[in-house]
Amino acid sequence: MTYESFFETRDSIEQVEESSSFAPKFDKDGLIPVVTTDYTSGEVLMQGFMNQEALIKTLELGQAVYFSRSRKVLWHKGKTSGLYQIVKEIRIDDDQDCIWLRVDVQGGASCHVGYRSCFYRSIPFGDKFNKESVKLEFEETEKVFDPEDVYKDAPNPTIL
Amino acid sequence: MTYESFFETRDSIEQVEESSSFAPKFDKDGLIPVVTTDYTSGEVLMQGFMNQEALIKTLELGQAVYFSRSRKVLWHKGKTSGLYQIVKEIRIDDDQDCIWLRVDVQGGASCHVGYRSCFYRSIPFGDKFNKESVKLEFEETEKVFDPEDVYKDAPNPTIL
Repeated sequence: MTYESFFETRDSIEQVEESSSFAPKFDKDGLIPVVTTDYTSGEVLMQGFMNQEALIKTLELGQAVYFSRSRKVLWHKGKTSGLYQIVKEIRIDDDQDCIWLRVDVQGGASCHVGYRSCFYRSIPFGDKFNKESVKLEFEETEKVFDPEDVYKDAPNPTIL
Repeated sequence: MTYESFFETRDSIEQVEESSSFAPKFDKDGLIPVVTTDYTSGEVLMQGFMNQEALIKTLELGQAVYFSRSRKVLWHKGKTSGLYQIVKEIRIDDDQDCIWLRVDVQGGASCHVGYRSCFYRSIPFGDKFNKESVKLEFEETEKVFDPEDVYKDAPNPTIL
């Protein structure tokens, strides 16, 4: 089975932007970026990627399935940690090159570091912007879980 | 002046994930993905990209400045349309390869097609997923502005 056949070809700007034609654009690596927010709070939990198979699996299953760029495999979020993301709504943007997932997170955490959201630090800006030394500020101070308990010996996905 | 000097080098996973060190990761094209949400509603408005210069300008100015991949130029959002994005908060994720902007949108619209959000269509999933024919559904039905009035002869940024 090919996944290609699920998607319509991209023929015109009007078709892509103004119609109900499902014609997502995958980049040269075969991926589409995905923004995942908490359905209730609206908080951005993470930003990931899907390939064609991951997108179809997510639509079928109603749970978030990504493509892991570090491990180069399909990544059913929660399979290791139990922190599944239950999809409540899936949106696609104007030019269909980005997906927005609204999810309910089992266990209340989405970040492999242990925080609720991956975006637990802010960057000072405007009046607080210091050209000489920009320092991140922690907006979440307590971890929801201990990553060592949950992921055991699994390699950290962060790439330097 | 180089923009490089604003950022710390990425030396360890602990430094990148657990410290206040500002060490964002730009991809091989020199870009970092940016998720932009409405500060009040939490709605995802758009997903764009910044290069080093765009990120610094955004921090200095307190308004969203992106890098346009289609036009390959710095893109001060709102310069043509008047729909500036006033930054209320900037977050960065665990491995510092994604930015989350929380903004107030002047004029209430962020999408070049004329809708409030770029994500004005949803994709049916789960029980509603139809393997034979996936059709997008419009979640926003009224445009906030007429793109022809606002953008005049400017080329449409969508790439097929």
